[in-house]
Amino acid sequence: MYCFNNDYSEGAHPNILNAMIQASLDQNAGYSLDVHTEHAKELIKKEIRRDDVDIHIIVGGTQTNMLTISAALRPHQAVIAAETGHINVHETGAIEATGHKVLTQQTPDGKLTPALIQKTLDWHTDEHMVQPKMVYISNTTEIGTQYTLAELEAISAFCKQHALYLFLDGARLGAALTSPINDLTLADIARLTDVFYIGGTKNGALFGECLVITHPDLKPDFRFMLKQKGAMLAKGFLLGIQFEEMFQNNLFYDMAAHSNEMAAILKKTFAECGFPFFSDSASNQQFPILPNDLIAALRENYQFQTQQAVDETHTAVRFVTSWATKEEAVRQFAADFKRLAGK
Amino acid sequence: MYCFNNDYSEGAHPNILNAMIQASLDQNAGYSLDVHTEHAKELIKKEIRRDDVDIHIIVGGTQTNMLTISAALRPHQAVIAAETGHINVHETGAIEATGHKVLTQQTPDGKLTPALIQKTLDWHTDEHMVQPKMVYISNTTEIGTQYTLAELEAISAFCKQHALYLFLDGARLGAALTSPINDLTLADIARLTDVFYIGGTKNGALFGECLVITHPDLKPDFRFMLKQKGAMLAKGFLLGIQFEEMFQNNLFYDMAAHSNEMAAILKKTFAECGFPFFSDSASNQQFPILPNDLIAALRENYQFQTQQAVDETHTAVRFVTSWATKEEAVRQFAADFKRLAGK
Amino acid sequence: MYCFNNDYSEGAHPNILNAMIQASLDQNAGYSLDVHTEHAKELIKKEIRRDDVDIHIIVGGTQTNMLTISAALRPHQAVIAAETGHINVHETGAIEATGHKVLTQQTPDGKLTPALIQKTLDWHTDEHMVQPKMVYISNTTEIGTQYTLAELEAISAFCKQHALYLFLDGARLGAALTSPINDLTLADIARLTDVFYIGGTKNGALFGECLVITHPDLKPDFRFMLKQKGAMLAKGFLLGIQFEEMFQNNLFYDMAAHSNEMAAILKKTFAECGFPFFSDSASNQQFPILPNDLIAALRENYQFQTQQAVDETHTAVRFVTSWATKEEAVRQFAADFKRLAGK
Amino acid sequence: MYCFNNDYSEGAHPNILNAMIQASLDQNAGYSLDVHTEHAKELIKKEIRRDDVDIHIIVGGTQTNMLTISAALRPHQAVIAAETGHINVHETGAIEATGHKVLTQQTPDGKLTPALIQKTLDWHTDEHMVQPKMVYISNTTEIGTQYTLAELEAISAFCKQHALYLFLDGARLGAALTSPINDLTLADIARLTDVFYIGGTKNGALFGECLVITHPDLKPDFRFMLKQKGAMLAKGFLLGIQFEEMFQNNLFYDMAAHSNEMAAILKKTFAECGFPFFSDSASNQQFPILPNDLIAALRENYQFQTQQAVDETHTAVRFVTSWATKEEAVRQFAADFKRLAGK
Repeated sequence: MYCFNNDYSEGAHPNILNAMIQASLDQNAGYSLDVHTEHAKELIKKEIRRDDVDIHIIVGGTQTNMLTISAALRPHQAVIAAETGHINVHETGAIEATGHKVLTQQTPDGKLTPALIQKTLDWHTDEHMVQPKMVYISNTTEIGTQYTLAELEAISAFCKQHALYLFLDGARLGAALTSPINDLTLADIARLTDVFYIGGTKNGALFGECLVITHPDLKPDFRFMLKQKGAMLAKGFLLGIQFEEMFQNNLFYDMAAHSNEMAAILKKTFAECGFPFFSDSASNQQFPILPNDLIAALRENYQFQTQQAVDETHTAVRFVTSWATKEEAVRQFAADFKRLAGK
Repeated sequence: MYCFNNDYSEGAHPNILNAMIQASLDQNAGYSLDVHTEHAKELIKKEIRRDDVDIHIIVGGTQTNMLTISAALRPHQAVIAAETGHINVHETGAIEATGHKVLTQQTPDGKLTPALIQKTLDWHTDEHMVQPKMVYISNTTEIGTQYTLAELEAISAFCKQHALYLFLDGARLGAALTSPINDLTLADIARLTDVFYIGGTKNGALFGECLVITHPDLKPDFRFMLKQKGAMLAKGFLLGIQFEEMFQNNLFYDMAAHSNEMAAILKKTFAECGFPFFSDSASNQQFPILPNDLIAALRENYQFQTQQAVDETHTAVRFVTSWATKEEAVRQFAADFKRLAGK
Repeated sequence: MYCFNNDYSEGAHPNILNAMIQASLDQNAGYSLDVHTEHAKELIKKEIRRDDVDIHIIVGGTQTNMLTISAALRPHQAVIAAETGHINVHETGAIEATGHKVLTQQTPDGKLTPALIQKTLDWHTDEHMVQPKMVYISNTTEIGTQYTLAELEAISAFCKQHALYLFLDGARLGAALTSPINDLTLADIARLTDVFYIGGTKNGALFGECLVITHPDLKPDFRFMLKQKGAMLAKGFLLGIQFEEMFQNNLFYDMAAHSNEMAAILKKTFAECGFPFFSDSASNQQFPILPNDLIAALRENYQFQTQQAVDETHTAVRFVTSWATKEEAVRQFAADFKRLAGK
Repeated sequence: MYCFNNDYSEGAHPNILNAMIQASLDQNAGYSLDVHTEHAKELIKKEIRRDDVDIHIIVGGTQTNMLTISAALRPHQAVIAAETGHINVHETGAIEATGHKVLTQQTPDGKLTPALIQKTLDWHTDEHMVQPKMVYISNTTEIGTQYTLAELEAISAFCKQHALYLFLDGARLGAALTSPINDLTLADIARLTDVFYIGGTKNGALFGECLVITHPDLKPDFRFMLKQKGAMLAKGFLLGIQFEEMFQNNLFYDMAAHSNEMAAILKKTFAECGFPFFSDSASNQQFPILPNDLIAALRENYQFQTQQAVDETHTAVRFVTSWATKEEAVRQFAADFKRLAGK
């Protein structure tokens, strides 16, 4: 049984584990005030070519979303997201639990646009309704799609014009930045957003999301928020060590590229067999629409998740690859798939 | 420079790290639904001699406190704590951020008693005030003291009688259970409290607090709360592996015992030099009251925290040892201390 | 200039004001523990033919919604509403500010159905999503439509079957119960819902919404919630006096019936001139779709609100009548309207 | 049985009721956008001799406190209050329910001072603790004491120096401003605080607290907060009419002065009989310490509240007078008291 359920089934890249072991008996300062975290921050600043940012490395994604949004908004303010956005669907109301409404727009491809954001603004005109103040996007999105430089520039300009903070959830930013259709750099993202994060959990770290705050209004007292939301890790140096390792050589990109390459083999397999896709993804999540009996047959040897029923006999399913996905397993899957699909 | 600042300066015990490396390339189920977590739960259930409990392993202590308290209380209900309690002082209002007041009582030794809890109940009599519904205690306490079996039984009986949930914060439960004055077992604690946790972070794990829920009212839907508060780790198997390792042999107790033994050497040193203590601790935190000039001299080679000024020339300071504290460092400190103290 | 903006432009019915003046110099118990409130509760219990309910009279509607929902739900639970529901649109995120997500379904007519509720349940299957636990409906709805007995029975049965609390917002319940198409009684509503309220603000009281809790789980400690949310009026007897007056004779129904009758004249006027309606309302809110130039002409002498643009030259507008709407003003409007519409 | 329980037992001054009746059939704009509210604001601005303020009239005191504090603070910030402060004791955790900790200091007389505030600041030094950002005081206090101009100036200067907002709860501000020992004006209070309110509920209005915001940071979007917390009254003109009436002649002060005069008679009675006081009040709340048997005898004909036991045979009790307290009742009480006290 091989598992394509997600990109967080395995532990961490051996280099990361080795770095943690090397430092394990050192006495480090607690709460992310250690030298490894300091070094990781320098590496990230170099990568994004900016020094005037605040960086906080946080254990998990839901935590990072909840923290960032609740730190930025006053009580009556709301965040705008795609209806499929992680904060709207898969965080058990974490944002609402901090008091804020998530305003959503349906999208064809999981991506927001200035026009969609404008629709929300048009609707919210007085004090009887919440006040939209932040835009939340993900790159890649929940359905594997991604923003181009032009698209991100358009959203960024729109947000500035309307005094909206732009927050980019980068839980799968590695996959986006190394995808064949990507034309963005980390420096672009730092330039075009007010706050964003670089995901470690879904790209070969044990855990860790590196939050970069570029907008001055969002910086003050963020560590108070971290502590209050239970997000200040006592042994914060564990976060620092992992991002140090990922960014002191090319490991972060290498792992994401591998993940995308494995997904590309899957994509090619599905396409060659003539199956359509639920979304047009060039990254490590693939959503083929398959006949239900083929899905059943595949499940005898492979794990993967159901996205949603498409019609009575077809279902969109999700295959996810990771930094650790073995090429031989993917090749074996491709062969099995073609056989079962009768191609 | 040797550091006695806290018990979370170092990484994790080598056995724990090795276990993580061994499992690193396995494909595990996410979100703590994996086999390691399952096994860890079985080991804990055996240790507490109860099967009818729910167990959740959570990354950090503030997170665990916030989660447990907010999951248990209705909006108008409050938790009672010692004024020195961690939830009252050192969590940046995490409990209040979930909507609940922390009601406090001053204590001579960091420990609550039925009489102190009764004082809070006496005061809260109608709907114009919050309704006390939970009692929060720590073992060991913030100042290193600990509950005896008789004391815990008295509080437990009182809480049952008054329909108060009893919650024991065991961030340093290892230190309590292996202290020379302890007469409690994990099974006692499971029997006498409604919910408690076994701390990993401060006892040799990278991170992790193992929450045990014994009261049926506190069990339903706890995983929803975990997710909502950002406390459901994607790679939850990392938590399972660590507690598996700590409880499949005696490692949890061995590490705590070492920590206490190192602290006992410090305690003996302070006492032999005739210095009094801020609290009467038999565990891994020691709070000697020292002359300010001696403190200054010590700080040239040692790190430790200030507790509070006692008079103009004396200050209570805190020395903390850990599973990783080296005996040679402690012996060296003892010699240096005696020399500087002129004894 | 005559105003059809809403049903809360005027003060209160003279009988209500007189009752308040009569009692003004009495010394009443505070916080709704007075004899008037007691009497009002008895009258309501008689009207709904149930004694086993808890009743609380609250100043405003948003307050009542926020209170009732936050008192009923645990932190991870959510309330289901029509997308047009007041709690979703017009309460500035009051529900979310208490920590709960509002889950919405689009409806053709502002009314929920078992099938629509089921769609929300189907989607929410695990702890990564909020847990639906309450259904919120309004009668009449935001767009003037109303539930039949059969419809309410169907929703009620569905909710019981799925362990969902059913909450009916009756801010305009008077208008619903006295509409020509109504087949519900207050007793039916008390039988079929778990909690509901009888609106005073929009039916001739100065203010006041009378909340009736029928489900035992929702009763405990509600007064604590009232106080905490700032909803316990010091001079609560003002609320009691008003509901006493409205229910000791037929005043509540008489005022609502008048309001509906005035709206019926408007409706007939619009229909006779051949204009369609945005919603099919038999109550005190009418939503004709009118040509924009006619709207502009009407606005020289009448106030009314815009609902939404329908096409480039037509807009749905809202006319609301109240207990105090003067028949002569409505007749004058009808004449003016026909003239301006060229009929 | 005559009632000295509180200052909100009776309805409203006849002038206020008359004004409400006069305006009852007018069509007013909703949500406090009406002409009466506009006029009331102008009158208040004149009274405080400032134009650059935002004014909102709100139904109740707990509501006003909760709103003002939660609108001003970021999530990690806290408010400092006397331990006896209304927000700490008698609001069922309303402040905590909005997410904020109330930091308290014990006071001898219910009043904060710069030295007491400094003690809280000294303790809160890093991100592991909440950040004090607002100071909450009441005038008069919960125990009838009041601030002098010099005291308020000292606190004001201290708060400015430490970037703390100063919030004055004036639920009983009328009583303070008309007390014989008062040397403050409304203009002083507007000059020295960042936000304060003028209480109507406890001074002859049916309800209503007039909040005046002087600090620019506290003004933006306050109406959103009003709506979200259920505090925007549909018929807001009821609030406007009442404050219009109270401030277009001297009614506000006249009512408070009467209340104080009635209390002065009580005070003189207690003092002449040789009884000590729990607090030194020159306003409408008096707290004599009386023998328990005398209290029991008084209770046969008078209602008043218990403050707290002082020793086994004596209790501090609370007598409150209002704008409506009848002098003949007070005279009768004085005679009865002297007789029962054997003087």
